[in-house]
Order: sequence, then C-alpha cells, then structure tokens
Amino acid sequence: MSDQTAELEMETDEDAYLLGPKAISAILYAVDIDDAAKLTELMEPLHAADIADLLEQINAYDRSRLIRLYGREFDGEILSELDESVREEVIAVLTPQVLSQAVRDMDSDDVVDLVEDLEDHQQSAILDALEDADRHAVQRALGYPEYSAGRLMQREVVMAPEHWSVGEAIDHLRATPEDELPDQFYHIVIVDPRLHPVGNVTLGKLMRSKRVTKLCDITEETFRVIPAVQAESDVAYAFNQYHLISAPVVDEEGRLIGIITIDDAMAVMDEEHEEDILRLAGVGEGSLSDRVIETTKQRLPWLAVNLVTAIAASLVIAQFEVALAQIVALAVLMPIVASMGGNAGTQSLTVAVRAIATKDLTGANVWRVIRREVLVGLVNGVIFAAIMGIVGVIWFGSPALGYVIAAAMVINLVVAGLAGTAIPVILERVGVDPALASGAFVTTVTDVVGFFAFLGLAALVLL
Amino acid sequence: MSDQTAELEMETDEDAYLLGPKAISAILYAVDIDDAAKLTELMEPLHAADIADLLEQINAYDRSRLIRLYGREFDGEILSELDESVREEVIAVLTPQVLSQAVRDMDSDDVVDLVEDLEDHQQSAILDALEDADRHAVQRALGYPEYSAGRLMQREVVMAPEHWSVGEAIDHLRATPEDELPDQFYHIVIVDPRLHPVGNVTLGKLMRSKRVTKLCDITEETFRVIPAVQAESDVAYAFNQYHLISAPVVDEEGRLIGIITIDDAMAVMDEEHEEDILRLAGVGEGSLSDRVIETTKQRLPWLAVNLVTAIAASLVIAQFEVALAQIVALAVLMPIVASMGGNAGTQSLTVAVRAIATKDLTGANVWRVIRREVLVGLVNGVIFAAIMGIVGVIWFGSPALGYVIAAAMVINLVVAGLAGTAIPVILERVGVDPALASGAFVTTVTDVVGFFAFLGLAALVLL
Repeated sequence: MSDQTAELEMETDEDAYLLGPKAISAILYAVDIDDAAKLTELMEPLHAADIADLLEQINAYDRSRLIRLYGREFDGEILSELDESVREEVIAVLTPQVLSQAVRDMDSDDVVDLVEDLEDHQQSAILDALEDADRHAVQRALGYPEYSAGRLMQREVVMAPEHWSVGEAIDHLRATPEDELPDQFYHIVIVDPRLHPVGNVTLGKLMRSKRVTKLCDITEETFRVIPAVQAESDVAYAFNQYHLISAPVVDEEGRLIGIITIDDAMAVMDEEHEEDILRLAGVGEGSLSDRVIETTKQRLPWLAVNLVTAIAASLVIAQFEVALAQIVALAVLMPIVASMGGNAGTQSLTVAVRAIATKDLTGANVWRVIRREVLVGLVNGVIFAAIMGIVGVIWFGSPALGYVIAAAMVINLVVAGLAGTAIPVILERVGVDPALASGAFVTTVTDVVGFFAFLGLAALVLL
Repeated sequence: MSDQTAELEMETDEDAYLLGPKAISAILYAVDIDDAAKLTELMEPLHAADIADLLEQINAYDRSRLIRLYGREFDGEILSELDESVREEVIAVLTPQVLSQAVRDMDSDDVVDLVEDLEDHQQSAILDALEDADRHAVQRALGYPEYSAGRLMQREVVMAPEHWSVGEAIDHLRATPEDELPDQFYHIVIVDPRLHPVGNVTLGKLMRSKRVTKLCDITEETFRVIPAVQAESDVAYAFNQYHLISAPVVDEEGRLIGIITIDDAMAVMDEEHEEDILRLAGVGEGSLSDRVIETTKQRLPWLAVNLVTAIAASLVIAQFEVALAQIVALAVLMPIVASMGGNAGTQSLTVAVRAIATKDLTGANVWRVIRREVLVGLVNGVIFAAIMGIVGVIWFGSPALGYVIAAAMVINLVVAGLAGTAIPVILERVGVDPALASGAFVTTVTDVVGFFAFLGLAALVLL
C-alpha cells in the first residue's frame, strides 16, 4: 500500500471531517509566520468541535501561539468542546477580555460543564465574567451532584399549561423574547398548575393541529420525567432505550426546573463508554493530551494491583519448586494454561460488564448466563485440551504430560467462565463498578487456578 | 449488606426502568397460569424496548409461551427493538396474521433494520406482508451497502424550495396528509431546484418567524449533508461531533433522498461502542441470548490466536531450559515480568484504539503520543523494577536476581508502551480494525520480550 493511500485512510472521510493532516500543517505554518489573517481564513470553515480537536492534537507551545494569534476570534463554543486536560491551559492563555466575551456567549449548561472541573481561581474568573442572572443559574446548577441530571440540563424550557389550546401556545411562543428561549427546542412541555410536567407536544404536531385543539389531546405517547438528582448515565440510558429527543427535569417536589436534550445525552453516553472501555483496561481516566506524569499516575494503581496478582501467582508456582526442578517442561508449558484462562476469563467478564451496563444481565437471567458461560468454558476447554495434549506429547514425548496439561486446561477454562461472570455480578451487587475492578479479580483467579491445577496435577501424576 | 438492598441495587432506578425482577416474575406467573388478561395488564405500562429486553432475558421456552399468549397485542416496535439473536426465533413463533400486522405498522427504516439480517424465507414473509410502496422502499434501502447511511435513513422528508417564505412552508406542512410525513420531524430541509439540500430550518424558528420571511434567511449555522454510502459509524461520529439533530442524506448526484435523525445515530454509536469493547476482549460479536454453541464459536478464534501466542512465548522459555533447570527461582518469577508487560501494553493499546476511533489520534500527533507512551512505560518500569528488585532480593536472597528482574521489567514496560501504541496505528493504516487485532499482537510482543529479557539476562548474569 502506498503512502498516499495510508494517509487517506488516516483522514478517513474528508467530507465528514475537515481536519486532515494537510489542514493542520497549513494552520501551523500560518502560526509560524505569524499571519493572523491567513489563520482566521483557515479556521473559518472549521466547526468549534474541530478547532477543539486541533488544539488537543498540537503541542502546548503551538497551542499557546495559535490561541494568541487567533485572539478575539476565539469563541466560547471552542472552550466547551475542549477536553478537560487542556482546558485549564487554554483558559490561562486567553486574555481576560477574550475569556469574558467567550463565556458570555455560552449557554448556561455549557458554562456549568466548563467551570465544574476548573481550579477555584479560574472558576471565579469565569463566574465574574457572567451577568448576574447567568451566574446565579450556574451556581444553582453546581449545587446538584456531579454527573447528575441537574448539571446536565438547561434551564430555559418552553412550557405551557395543560388547558391551553394550540393557538394560545403558538401565540405565546411568538411573543416570547428570543433570549428567554433555548437555542434549539423540539417540544413544548405541558405542565399542571403545580408545575408538574404531564406531557410533551412536538412542534411538528403543534404546527399541524387546528388552533382550537387542546394541547393535552396531542401529547406524545412516550413521555419520561427525569429527577434532577438522577445519575447522568441513567439519563443517557433512558434516552437511548426510549428514543427520547428531550425530557423535562424535575426537582424533589416534581416541579419542572429544566430540560435535557438528546445531543447532551449522546455526549454523556459517549463519555460513559469511554470510561467503561478505559476502566476495563485498567486506565482510570485520561486522554491523549495528558502529560507523561499524569498518565503515569493514572496507570500506576492498576499495574500495582497486577503486581500483587502476579506475585500471588508466583507464590503458587513456588509451592512446586521440587516438581519444576525435576521437570523443566513444566516451566515451559505452565504459562500457556494461565494465559488461556486469562483470555477466556476476560471474554466472559467483558460480556458480563457490558450486559450489566446495558441492563441486559439482571436477576432474571443471571443463573442462566453463568451456566452458559461455564458450558462455553467446558466446550472450549475440551477443544484446547485436545490440541495442547497432542502438542505436549509431540513436543516433550510424554503422554502423561499431555494428559496433565489437557486436564488443567479444562479446569481453568471452566473456572474462567464462572469467575468471569460471577465476579462482575457480585461487584455490581456490592456497589463496586464492575468495569473497574473485575479484571484484577478474574485474572488473579485464572492465574492461580491455572498454575495450581497444572503444577499440582503434574506433581501428582508425574513425580 | 442485606438481600433487600442488593436486590434494589440490581433494579437500579425503578423510575427509569420498570422491568425489575418482581415485574418479570409476575409476568412469567401470568404466562404459567395462562392468564392472557393479566399478561396484557402487566405488559401495558411497558415500553416496546422494555418488552424486547424482557423477551431477551427469559429462556426460549417461556419466550414462545409468552408470545403465544400475548397474541395480537404484539406490535412491530417490539420486533425492531429485539436483539438479532432472538429475532428469528420470535418471528418463527408469531402467527402470520400477527406478523403481517406488526410489520405493516412499522416505519420503513425499521423494517429495513429488521429484515436485513433475517434468513431468506423469513425476509420474504415480511416483505410480502408490506404494501407495494413500502416493499419497494425497503428493497431500495437494501440496495445500499450494509451499515451505510442509506440503510439507516428514513425516506419521508419534510422539504421546501429555497425561495419559499415561512408562510408558504407552514401552509404546505398543514396541507400535507399525515401519512406522507415522518412520525417525528424537527427540521425542514431547504433544497435548490435540483433537489440538492442547501440548509436546515428548525421548526422553532419557523414558528417564531414572520410569514413573509424567506426560509433561506433563517437556516441553521451548522449544516451537514450525508452521502448515502457513508459508513454509519462516520454518521454517528458527525452527529456527536457537530451536535446535529437531523441531517439530510443525498445520493451520488447530491440529491436529497432521505433523512437521518439523532436517535438513530445514538443507537449506532451504542452498537459501535459495544463492538469495540467486545472486539478488544476478543469476543467477535454476540449477546447474552446466544446459545452455548454460538458463543463457543464466537470465542474460539481468539482463544486459538492466544494459544499460538502462548506457544510462541513457551518456545522462548524453552530456549532457556538450562538456566531454568539450575535456578528454579527463574520459573517462579518469570510470569511476573510477562504479566506486567501485558497489562501495560493493554493500557496503551486501549487508549490508542479509543483515540483512533474518536479521531483524536492522527498523523499530527502520533509521534508525540508514541514518545509519551514510551516515557510512561519507562517511568512505571523504573518504579516497578525497584519494587520487584527488592522483592527478588528479600524472597530469594540474591541481589543479582533482583537486578535481572528489575532490568527485564524496565525493558518490557518500555516495549509495552511502544508496541501498545504503534501496533494499533499500523493496523489502522493497513486497513485492519485495530480493536479486533491489536490485543493478540501486543501480548505476543510483551510475552516474548518479557520472557526473553528476563531469562536471557538471567542466563548472562547468573550462570
């Protein structure tokens, strides 16, 4: 494959994604020659999300030069699209004037998302830039727990009392000043006299209905109300499960206080998935733009856990020093049994962790799933036992060694299926995130059982 | 923690998710006593997506009894929410009358999603149940590649020529018969005389603008057109990156042929993530409702690859039989070095695979990321080398053994960082899915290097 093709692969779809390597080079060149006009021209077609990606991908030196040269063109949306890891750095580079202007243009929910992770002095710099009403709104949102619906929602809601007609709703909408309405809205929330949401009316239906029609007669079938304290992961789940486009958020008394739209729910789902996938691999958090020292800190705890696991496995091996000293073939073959068990266990646990996250693995089917995983372990165990038995015989010329490795393989793959399913389920029940902790437990089990079964059987049969 | 609490944990949020273990037991009891009225009453509050989840969680015997008892209440939306693994089975249980009615109520894009994975005879049974126009629409959609925007889109689009005024658009909307409009729509697509989409107008803006305003003066700032042949993963990426709510789909000539809405994009993103997470763990596809034999088949290839990897590592170990026979401590300690390398490599590769998927790892920063991963490997390597060096000395009383394991640890963790990043990047460039294949390559490298470095250094230093 030529270089040309490889480069195109990396750019994937030019149409969907303007930020190819060529565009980045051109932008960095404009920064190098200090050409603000050229820079503005190159950045103009880029969406704020693409500019944020660009800032994340270049190094810190280029980043600060670019931001300084871009100057007043820098807008708030770029800030809200930026990854946490570079946000503080970017904010520190912006002049106070540019920062205040950028923040004032943002929606209140975006400001909340921006300031919640900042250090105190940066947080107050941004809050001070806001107008009073906006600042109070942001501070109220920050009163809700982190990662809750209350932080995710926007305050601006289009609502109407249930006794209104279509005509009244339309007239009211037309009379409301622009700045009291959300940027985009797709539903009108129908509320009762105590401000409890009772239904949604889509704008499409509103527009196509007769002016005298009652709003309560044209509400949508699927309607869900979200408590402000609900975890944002559950919010994302509900949007995806019930195909919601927007949903009203209520306080403890069930009163309407905001609205969440599907684009925010989609972003949360993306983050949740990222978290799950990284946790499964023992990478707590972290992004590509983190520095070496931060990344090292994020990865170290899991490696430390793994070291303990590995030492535990070594202690098992140490019990069989006599056998190992007499038959070196055991040392050669023993990692195979442990490794196969570890892989089979990881397969089972990944399926289980995913199924718990998507609420597909519940009390109703947990025993059936465990039985299935054990059976799968048994079938795969028998297949690979046969293969390894033969390999053992051919390689070392010892049928007994073949039987031992075959038996150990079956045992370890069955245990892998059992542990890979049971451990995440148990962790979930005692309130520990299974994505975070399952891996360490499962590989400890498969290592210990793998070495013990193989070396123990060898000591019994071969010595 | 009491049983009560554990059960509540498992149900998580009753409000967001009605399908607790108690609800399932009650439903299965109604099936047991053959009480159709009770069943209908219990199922009534459930959303189609929840009913689909229920059908996936119960066993095949209960599933077919439930479907038979539920009879004519079974609607098409349940079918479209069902996981592929049980769809064929459910369709086989439905009577032809119930099936035709269910399918006739579905949107054309949902029918496409339903039939594309069915076997031929089931596919034609469903196509025959459709009216002519719908059948043609479904067949046209099936003409687009699998997992493309053309399969994902719905055909019903609300469009208006660019010269129209707000008043003309509203009058047209009101005059269009219900069944020519999509179930839900949020934008009007503005087209030029050649049917090329040129902009989006939100219904909110349409409703609030004066009747004489030109549509082309109130279009949204962010507007993206999606080619019908674009991969659905790129579609989902674009929706998430640019916060799109709906986007027009065009044919090769750029003419408007359909529309994709964010709820479909969100579902695709969810599936893509599921695929990535399962592929990283060596589980090709598969769901909890698959049978033992299917699951075994899905997992076997990856275990076979792992067996080859493990044997390769054993061949390396076999080169050092002399050293192992003389110093049993080497057999005890060698899995630690390999295991730490494997874990560090998995951390790096997971971060790299995710970053490639989210287009955060590109030609612009690949060298910087590789340098960072190698440095992280070096720092963690030195830390764990110190720990293991001390453990080696204390455990086996040999400083030389301590130096050897420390040096091997540093080497393997640096290699893990390098391989964990470089391998996914290379696979992506040659057109192989890095999520699918990286794991096998990276653990082969860390096993081989781990055993070779440790045993090789030991042979040099200790013998």
